[in-house]
This record gives sequence, structure tokens and C-alpha cells, in this order.
Amino acid sequence: MKWKSPYLVEPHEKLRLAHRETSGLSNSPFVSKSGVHTPETAAPVLVKHRDRLAKLQEVLYASQTHSVLIVLQGMDTAGKDGTISHIFSGINPQGCDVASFKVPTPLEARHDFLWRVHEKTPPRGQIVIFNRSHYEDVLSPRVHKLIDGKTVKTRLDQINAFEESLHDNGTLILKFFLHISHDEQTRRLQARIDDPEKHWKLSDADFKERQFWPQYQDAYEEAISRTSRKHAPWFVIPANHKWYRNLAISEILVEGMKSLKLEYPKPTMDASKIKL
Amino acid sequence: MKWKSPYLVEPHEKLRLAHRETSGLSNSPFVSKSGVHTPETAAPVLVKHRDRLAKLQEVLYASQTHSVLIVLQGMDTAGKDGTISHIFSGINPQGCDVASFKVPTPLEARHDFLWRVHEKTPPRGQIVIFNRSHYEDVLSPRVHKLIDGKTVKTRLDQINAFEESLHDNGTLILKFFLHISHDEQTRRLQARIDDPEKHWKLSDADFKERQFWPQYQDAYEEAISRTSRKHAPWFVIPANHKWYRNLAISEILVEGMKSLKLEYPKPTMDASKIKL
Repeated sequence: MKWKSPYLVEPHEKLRLAHRETSGLSNSPFVSKSGVHTPETAAPVLVKHRDRLAKLQEVLYASQTHSVLIVLQGMDTAGKDGTISHIFSGINPQGCDVASFKVPTPLEARHDFLWRVHEKTPPRGQIVIFNRSHYEDVLSPRVHKLIDGKTVKTRLDQINAFEESLHDNGTLILKFFLHISHDEQTRRLQARIDDPEKHWKLSDADFKERQFWPQYQDAYEEAISRTSRKHAPWFVIPANHKWYRNLAISEILVEGMKSLKLEYPKPTMDASKIKL
Repeated sequence: MKWKSPYLVEPHEKLRLAHRETSGLSNSPFVSKSGVHTPETAAPVLVKHRDRLAKLQEVLYASQTHSVLIVLQGMDTAGKDGTISHIFSGINPQGCDVASFKVPTPLEARHDFLWRVHEKTPPRGQIVIFNRSHYEDVLSPRVHKLIDGKTVKTRLDQINAFEESLHDNGTLILKFFLHISHDEQTRRLQARIDDPEKHWKLSDADFKERQFWPQYQDAYEEAISRTSRKHAPWFVIPANHKWYRNLAISEILVEGMKSLKLEYPKPTMDASKIKL
């Protein structure tokens, strides 16, 4: 499909994250078209998107012709969990799964890096959200120099082939990088520190990884530039404002699912001949 | 825990489905205590239950000490899908999965009947809803005389041992039989026949299985009587009225999850020592 979103990374574009907005409020299609510029003015639009998503999910489930794979990536605190709970609460849980990819188990580590990912891809009729994904395998190992640049390129090629195959088998793939500024991450971590109820969420690792911010931004730029394709586009979503992030992502989901032109299946029996 | 629900099947009780209500409106704790007797008066209570469930799910997910397994069984059209979409929309899909058990695959059929079921049980922190379950293996094969009474009893013993083991490892198990009358099934099937938009849902098999209604009721009575235990109780829910069914089930879920006395985990690091 032809995307009109300003957040799309065009195929073969050389992404520069520093040139991409984290706030979204200047030059936004929502602000200019619909006058949406605050959480309050965004709320009814988000409700509309959620209702549409719920309806599209119903037809997706009934038709069993396509599946939807949503990839969420971003720096720590970028809002992956919040995106899931805000946009997908309201969808029938029967048709929507979330797969989180943590440190690989010993068995997973003995397989190629796409093995455990393939297992979690959506069957026809289903939406699956990847909370982190196969892209982690070209980020953290890269930043910490556990793999070299050649291995990164090889993996990115493998990812392209893998995603193209999923697409050709009926999967709509939409990938979102939740783009926050370094300052915003500072604010969010400080908010966790200031709130004793959120202390259980704090971990040493988050603060250590934060020191590698520039290296991660570089790794993301390469990964996204090389894997944003027509069959599996990346969107760099301004994510400093949670409400704006939810609005922008849900709109792209609605547009993407509408483009599948889903239809309820034909009856398998003649209802007029049934006697109860 | 000590259940006050009138829909509980007491351990070792000999269940008679004919003596259990399908409407729920006479002798209901909701009607007598809260004056709830219509969909309109039930709506705010259901919203309250859903909000509580959403909060309980959050602590469940954070604490990682327990898991919740919900088993939904019932005759065709009893409302298993509707229960899931009405009660669990609103819950964060990250913490809630649905497992549907259809005809076993060739590989599944080569395993014991609990193999594929065990794989789908909830890890700590998670709610999993079984839309049909291991109980199917003592229902349809029984009704169609593919297994004898001795095999049924053996399987029910195995189910008890399996569920007790899950319970002892931290899983809250709640099992619901959605109890509709034969007349109500007739009405629901007729409604599908009358609505061309629902014809795709019609299948020959539903109408064939309907002829075995009494045999299924017998099979359910035996299965439920033998497997309603303190560690894994069955509830026979009046399900002719969808709003009443949703109310009754969601109340039991809230009570059950409250009884776990879930708490947010302790912090793993000292927040006062963090410098950003």
C-alpha cells in the first residue's frame, strides 16, 4: 500500500534519528488536519481508532485469510508496554497475542536467532504484537561488540528474507520504533525513582545500558534503514508524548488493516435448508 | 478459599444439571443484594468488575508469584466466545492469553491427551483462558462411544492429579460450565439462521451434535462431579442471559484473584542511590 504517514521510513532511505521528531507536535498531520494538540482533544480520536481496530480484528478473525504482526522497539522507558495496554485493551484477547523476547533460553541460544521468533508469528486470523523482537539480535550484541559489522549485515539480510516470506504468506507486518529523546528518558527514570510504588521496576541493567545511548541510536539507524521495506515498513513514532504516540500508532494500524480489504467468509451451508 | 457462590459445585457433590438454573434470575444473589435484574442495572456492576480485574491482573503480572487458569466449557452457542470478549476486553493483552483446543493435530494425537494442554498453561504472572479444554477428551469421545466408562474415569483421575499439581505450583484454577437450556440453544441457532451476516458461522457439525444433547449433559455431570475440587472448583453458571452470565463469572474471577493476596514485588535496588 501507499503510506501517507510522515513517520514512514522509505525503503532504502538512510535514516537519521536526530532529524526525526520525538515530540510530534510541530508539523503533525493530526494537529493541522483535526486540531488535535492535547491529550483531551486526542481522546475521542483514540476511542474511534480503538473501535475501528476492534471491528477490523473481528473480520480478520472470521476471514482467516491474513494475519497481522506488529513489532515494537525502542530504548528503555520508550513506552512499549504502555502502547500495548493503551491501544490493544478493548480488542478481543482471543484474536490478539503478545510475544515478549527476553534473554534466550539455553535451547533457544542453540538455534538460529529467528527460530524462537518464527514460532511466535501470528497464524491467519490473529494479531500478534512483538514486545521487542528479532531486532534485538542486531542491537545489544552490536553495541557491546559481541558480533561484528559483517554479522549484523548478514542478520539484517536474513531478517529481510524472513519478513518477505511472512508477507508473501499473508502477514501484514508493521514495525514501530518508539522515538524518545534522551532528556525524556531521564525524566521517565527520575519519575520511577521518585515514586516508591515503581521502585520494583528499577533494575541496574537499565541504568548501565543508558550509557550506550549513542551506540544504540547508531545500531537502530542501520537496522531500520536496511529493513524498512514495502512488505515490512518501519515507522519512527514521536513518543515523548504518550497520547501522541498512541494516536499515531493506532492510526497506522487502522490504515494498514483496512488495506487488507478483509471480508466475512461465505457460508458453508444453506441456512434455508436447516430445520431445528 | 471458602466460596459463597451459589453456582459452586461442592467437592464430591453429585451434580444434576436439570436442578441447576439456566436463567439465574430467581434466587440470585445479585438480584436480592444489589437490585440487579436487567442488563441496564447490571452494566455498572460489570464495569466495576472489569476495572478490578484489570487492576488485579497488573499486580499478578508484576508479582510473578501466581498464575490464573480459567476453563470455559459449555454446549454449542453457550457463549464461550462472548464471555471472553465481554469480560476480558479491557485487560492488558500482554498478561492474558486465550488457548482454543480444536481437533488434535496428528502429532498431538500421538501424545497423551494432557500434553498439548500442559504446554498452554499459564506461566507465573499470566492469565490464560481455555476456550474448551482437556475436558473435551471425556465428552465427545464418551458420547460417541469411542472410549468406555473405565477410560473416562481414568482420564478424570489424571485430570485431578494434573490440576492439583498446577495448583500446588501456584496456579489459581477456576472452571466454568456455561449452562443454557435446550430451548435457548434453539433460539440462538435460529437467530443465526435468520441473520445472513452470521451464516458463515453455521456448520453441519453443530446441528449433528445437538441431537446428542442428553448424552452430553450426562457426560458433563459425571466429569464435573468428579473434578470439582477445592484446588480446582467448577461453577455451573446460568447462561441463558448473557449479561447475567458475564456478571456471575466476573464476580467469581474477582473474588478468586483477590484471595491470592497479590502484592507488588520489593525493589531490587536502592532508588536513593541512583544518580542520573
